[in-house]
Amino acid sequence: MMITVQSISADLARVREKSPLVHNITNFVVMNNTANALLALGASPVMAHAVEEVKDMVNIASALVINMGTLNPQWVDGMLEAGKAATAKSIPVVFDPVGVGATLYRNEVAARILAECKPTFIRGNASEIMALAKENVVTKGVDSSASSDSAIDAAKRLAQETGAVVVISGPEDFITNGQEVLSTQNGSTVMARVTGMGCTATAVLGAFAGVNPNRMEAATHAMAVMGIAGEIAASKSGGPGTLQLHFLDTLYNLDEDNIEEIYKSEA
Amino acid sequence: MMITVQSISADLARVREKSPLVHNITNFVVMNNTANALLALGASPVMAHAVEEVKDMVNIASALVINMGTLNPQWVDGMLEAGKAATAKSIPVVFDPVGVGATLYRNEVAARILAECKPTFIRGNASEIMALAKENVVTKGVDSSASSDSAIDAAKRLAQETGAVVVISGPEDFITNGQEVLSTQNGSTVMARVTGMGCTATAVLGAFAGVNPNRMEAATHAMAVMGIAGEIAASKSGGPGTLQLHFLDTLYNLDEDNIEEIYKSEA
Amino acid sequence: MMITVQSISADLARVREKSPLVHNITNFVVMNNTANALLALGASPVMAHAVEEVKDMVNIASALVINMGTLNPQWVDGMLEAGKAATAKSIPVVFDPVGVGATLYRNEVAARILAECKPTFIRGNASEIMALAKENVVTKGVDSSASSDSAIDAAKRLAQETGAVVVISGPEDFITNGQEVLSTQNGSTVMARVTGMGCTATAVLGAFAGVNPNRMEAATHAMAVMGIAGEIAASKSGGPGTLQLHFLDTLYNLDEDNIEEIYKSEA
Repeated sequence: MMITVQSISADLARVREKSPLVHNITNFVVMNNTANALLALGASPVMAHAVEEVKDMVNIASALVINMGTLNPQWVDGMLEAGKAATAKSIPVVFDPVGVGATLYRNEVAARILAECKPTFIRGNASEIMALAKENVVTKGVDSSASSDSAIDAAKRLAQETGAVVVISGPEDFITNGQEVLSTQNGSTVMARVTGMGCTATAVLGAFAGVNPNRMEAATHAMAVMGIAGEIAASKSGGPGTLQLHFLDTLYNLDEDNIEEIYKSEA
Repeated sequence: MMITVQSISADLARVREKSPLVHNITNFVVMNNTANALLALGASPVMAHAVEEVKDMVNIASALVINMGTLNPQWVDGMLEAGKAATAKSIPVVFDPVGVGATLYRNEVAARILAECKPTFIRGNASEIMALAKENVVTKGVDSSASSDSAIDAAKRLAQETGAVVVISGPEDFITNGQEVLSTQNGSTVMARVTGMGCTATAVLGAFAGVNPNRMEAATHAMAVMGIAGEIAASKSGGPGTLQLHFLDTLYNLDEDNIEEIYKSEA
Repeated sequence: MMITVQSISADLARVREKSPLVHNITNFVVMNNTANALLALGASPVMAHAVEEVKDMVNIASALVINMGTLNPQWVDGMLEAGKAATAKSIPVVFDPVGVGATLYRNEVAARILAECKPTFIRGNASEIMALAKENVVTKGVDSSASSDSAIDAAKRLAQETGAVVVISGPEDFITNGQEVLSTQNGSTVMARVTGMGCTATAVLGAFAGVNPNRMEAATHAMAVMGIAGEIAASKSGGPGTLQLHFLDTLYNLDEDNIEEIYKSEA
């Protein structure tokens, strides 16, 4: 598979043209960020979590994002209901297992989401992917305590077991379907000092999955755009505060020339 | 009715002088934005949604804002309780029917809020106003799929049926009491790429309603201030990220000279 | 006790080195702000509120922050469960009684948290501290209607009764253990026009409490850093919007030279 400046730009153009509706059931901390990132990118976010309506909402969506950052039983009910409905209609489901490994409850909920919703994508940091793959890993809250490349084997196994494309995000991002492993290298260390950048990557993945049925491409393009926009934004910023705003401006203004200039591929 | 640079400025001065307490029962995505916009404007926001306390809270408020962006049954209970208490005490109630038309649940909840709370103001985008007026309209999540002027007849009918002043916001805003229709033309297309700008307009309307009993004036002044501040902010911004911050700075610094320079009236 | 440029800088260095996990059960309005402030400072925030998991989460944390800004019974259950678990394990508990005095429900919940969780720190504005100490005070929503120094006696009594270190924040901040009273004088009036600055102070206090067992020092250092960063940010800002971003950038970049230049002590 070839990920190129042109393939990234083509998917970005598709997001802007089709403005896919991305249904998010996500956490309280990052809702504003992820809605803004989707809007800046050209997608159309909607947030709805009640069991009373998630089925209706996901039925008009191009992708569903399930993020378990601030769990409770009512929200989990909504996640499961929406996830099952999406999978039944072949709407892509992107799962972000925030903080899995930190508490028993998170482990149980994550296992139920995997089993009942059968997500098409899973994105987490290295600790979360290893915890989800039942590796022995010490998790510290929601931040990763392991390096991205140490989680590649766990990610491949998780992809094989679940059928999902699995993304490990970090200084370098890895994307795998259980056989092939792609990677993207853009970004900035300051991004780790802004809350919800990982959750935003998950939401952006939802937008790309909503316009490109090739899952490895959709996931890799999404991670490339996150890293490129973050790197450009960091170069204009004085710290994690201003980075957030320049990140949204950059997503809005991103074009093939910017991508060409800054995209780092492994080749 | 004459809306002028002077009438807008006079209401803005009143908001800053009286700092009306605006009680918001609103959605998780925009709470931070709307609180910040009210503070920047000079008003005093409070967020409280539990049935255990909304009656106490609304009784000390100058206006109540009900926004159904991220519904669930417990929140609806709080909205209905607060709305009924506010109306019983003649405290203005501003209703934002976010995403009505997208799911059956939203339609049912919106209908209950109209019937039980009898809001004094309703603000939505064209799709939402048409859905609320039971026009045949296709809604796509929370973004409008219709133009503002196509919803004017629906807005007038909705105003006549409910007794509310109805506001359609969009590139051009329309404000109607069922007979008269006023409009404001300021703004920027980039505002549609920032989440919660519509919800912020609803909250700002709450602040103006808290200081001016003339409802057509309060609503039109609020929409004018939103559009003027958004247009000034956009002229200083590189995209939807920086726009948000300049928008708050502009609300904070807005004076009669700025308004004079940029206000577009139809006359 | 001597609070100096050096003692502040030393605690700041400790936060950055140890990156204490701060478990927040806080309100919907400010979650994003407080997470970002903790990350910019160098701490590691986690948000979790469900009774199903708060005990597990607080057991791996260095401090617990309980903020009752947007209450409901399920959240209160989580707060009480987490607070009791933290106190049982001698993990510092910082309590922010947002809006106490505004409704009966808030008064009851605040009383339960004091009685059952036995917080080690209480931070509020003057009205909230006076309401908590059962002084006769008129509260207007969540903003203070009293001056900070008028609440010093109430704060001392509250500290004596509860055993907590009590912080009154405002244009001048006061910190007391019931005997000694320290103060910090940095800041900017524009900070009061940004939502969640008080809640952010509470979260930042959690980070300092997580690295310094001397409670008067931890609290005073936290308030000094808030005031210093806010004052530097205000000097670079055009209003409350840009202030927020510069505030985060400043927390991230703050060093002993900045502190030296701007720190105002009473001596």
